[in-house]
Amino acid sequence: MKVSIDGQRLLRRIDELATIGAIVGASGERGSARLALTDEDRLGRDLVVRWMNDLGLEVTIDGIGNVIAVMPHASGHAPVMAGSHIDTVATGGRFDGNLGVLAGLEVIESVMAAGIDLERPLAVGFFTDEEGARFAPDMLGSLVYVGGMPLEQALDIAAVDGARLGDELIAIGYQGGGPCPGLVPHAFVELHIEQGPVLEAEGVRIGAVTGVQGISWTRVNLVGQSNHAGTTPMSMRRDSAAAMFDIGVRLAEIVAEVGPPQVGTIGRIEVTPNLVNVVPSRVSFTIDVRHTDEMVLRSVEDRVHAIVREIADRHGLMVSTETLARFEPVAFDDRVVSIVEATARAHGLSVQRMPSGAGHDAQMLARVCPTAMIFTPSVNGISHNPAEFTSDDDLIAGTQVLADVMLELTEWNPKERS
Amino acid sequence: MKVSIDGQRLLRRIDELATIGAIVGASGERGSARLALTDEDRLGRDLVVRWMNDLGLEVTIDGIGNVIAVMPHASGHAPVMAGSHIDTVATGGRFDGNLGVLAGLEVIESVMAAGIDLERPLAVGFFTDEEGARFAPDMLGSLVYVGGMPLEQALDIAAVDGARLGDELIAIGYQGGGPCPGLVPHAFVELHIEQGPVLEAEGVRIGAVTGVQGISWTRVNLVGQSNHAGTTPMSMRRDSAAAMFDIGVRLAEIVAEVGPPQVGTIGRIEVTPNLVNVVPSRVSFTIDVRHTDEMVLRSVEDRVHAIVREIADRHGLMVSTETLARFEPVAFDDRVVSIVEATARAHGLSVQRMPSGAGHDAQMLARVCPTAMIFTPSVNGISHNPAEFTSDDDLIAGTQVLADVMLELTEWNPKERS
Repeated sequence: MKVSIDGQRLLRRIDELATIGAIVGASGERGSARLALTDEDRLGRDLVVRWMNDLGLEVTIDGIGNVIAVMPHASGHAPVMAGSHIDTVATGGRFDGNLGVLAGLEVIESVMAAGIDLERPLAVGFFTDEEGARFAPDMLGSLVYVGGMPLEQALDIAAVDGARLGDELIAIGYQGGGPCPGLVPHAFVELHIEQGPVLEAEGVRIGAVTGVQGISWTRVNLVGQSNHAGTTPMSMRRDSAAAMFDIGVRLAEIVAEVGPPQVGTIGRIEVTPNLVNVVPSRVSFTIDVRHTDEMVLRSVEDRVHAIVREIADRHGLMVSTETLARFEPVAFDDRVVSIVEATARAHGLSVQRMPSGAGHDAQMLARVCPTAMIFTPSVNGISHNPAEFTSDDDLIAGTQVLADVMLELTEWNPKERS
Repeated sequence: MKVSIDGQRLLRRIDELATIGAIVGASGERGSARLALTDEDRLGRDLVVRWMNDLGLEVTIDGIGNVIAVMPHASGHAPVMAGSHIDTVATGGRFDGNLGVLAGLEVIESVMAAGIDLERPLAVGFFTDEEGARFAPDMLGSLVYVGGMPLEQALDIAAVDGARLGDELIAIGYQGGGPCPGLVPHAFVELHIEQGPVLEAEGVRIGAVTGVQGISWTRVNLVGQSNHAGTTPMSMRRDSAAAMFDIGVRLAEIVAEVGPPQVGTIGRIEVTPNLVNVVPSRVSFTIDVRHTDEMVLRSVEDRVHAIVREIADRHGLMVSTETLARFEPVAFDDRVVSIVEATARAHGLSVQRMPSGAGHDAQMLARVCPTAMIFTPSVNGISHNPAEFTSDDDLIAGTQVLADVMLELTEWNPKERS
């Protein structure tokens, strides 16, 4: 152990930040609603920036409202950065995003308190509008931070409530003068709750995240003929729902054939006219397929499209498909992932390599610097819900691993080792 | 041919009745909206009753508003009755119900004009609220007519718009003093458009309807777990939509194994939370299965329930089912069906025996007297829509068959032949 973090201080900060925009879940769970660039987001930002300033960090706010705090350091070297986001969805929990920011702050405070001499500084940041719940796309702040979208274009994005992003940013006082794209870190590490059930189910304390799955969302529209369910013989039907059932079963078979980490989901279904005694003329449904390997994902997309057309033909239907979203998989830096793994083991914590099924700011930072993520278990895999929960022990263990990974990375020279 | 009907007079009456509550379809088709016991229904009734009175028929209005017109006849024998309904759904066509009533009237006028001497009188009736679109259940007037529901209970039924049936009946002036249950006919024959695609597709002019399918409607509720579509491995899901797809495919297999006239339809589907990136926690969907044989229908219901439970178990779901509707099949009188068949053949019209997939007043009359139905083709199987269409030739051919079947039945003595 290179530095010992103060677990109780971490937990107190998580609690205090969660009181801003506090909401209560169905069973009394305490969550938060801090949609990006609302007054609640401003209050959350003000609190975290106060903590950054109290530590004497050099705080930069950039043109899209990303906040980066760097430990003062004489070297001028690029920092090892931690970070995540503090905006939430409308029914947010206490940990999603917040943990990564407050853990980074805790690591810096512990290192400074211990007077540890570092080759390069540490930094912690939080990025604007990671959730995308108010302004699409998600991970917007980190996208702009790494130069993936011009600042002016981002400022012009309209919210679901009609507001312009740039106006809202000025209104809450968080359009700063820092550069976009921003400072390129030496390395970036994001601690985050898993938001899925795997670690808990397997009894593993730490996930060494190898990358983010590629995501493919397709809407399938099938159009047949609406007919009386009593008077129309089966042979004379063009039943769009029957075709959807066939497609659903074949999708499950394809996903099973490919095997983990392939996932496939039909989550949204609209049926017309949606009456008990009428053969459905039209169904629209979404297919969500994800894989960590772009080649595999493309092959699955191709197979799914082929079976959609084949089944629609067999049922005598017209078919159209629309791509709703498509993100290529992101691979994190295997060397940084190995450091996460080794550090967890050194602490006697069970660890497993795993992909992230959800998107994170780290996938944007991975475009510009060696990056990895650390996952801690989510009870029942629940997230985006006040019932989101990770035990105190797991929050503290994850933060301790983050601390030692960051310290290790300050001494790591990728050019030497690669 | 025993009597020659006046096809043009029939068509003129269909046209004139259709002007009451006239509506226009998506492509300019002329339909009608005469919901039961509305002002439009009253105007339609007034017109048909005027035609009945003009012919000198003895018109009886009963306590539920059924109107029965009997040809004056010295014998006092029970009449051979035709009939159907003149109420429509909100988006009704010109033929559904109206054809059977106006064809019966045409037969009586032609027979009277020809001065044919009959052993027993003819009659034509129209029954209140066949559609059930305003007051549930459907076929209400004919149900009360045959003693299947006490009059007082029927008068207390509330409309979808909140009105009480008895009040609405008085308001339009159609609560009469005729008895309920009403006069039992010697035999009953209903001419009706098919409302399905079979006759047109097979190029057959006349359907000799053997009975009405039994109907079983079930709602299936599957409850699993809502999970993130990216972070939840397939093996850890309890996906209610995936189970529905399996059930839909198995239902189609069972229906195919049983073969015609078995039909099965999943027409209504509700998904929760219905989001592209969330594994559905809950689906509710309806299963509509119909068969003409009660034993077969029960066996299909049992098989469907078994596979629903088996598939729900396999997916780790809770399952509940509700019976939304259940009607036993009705078999028409085979001797009367044979007379329909023979009469069509005698006119050189192609004919086929077939069940009705939809409910009709005739199935209520079948409880008290020998009954059958005659179907004429529906173009594209469309009904309950202004685009509902049957060619003039088919309307006239069907009415001519009705005429000769009715005359044949006046001489028919079921006791002698059975």
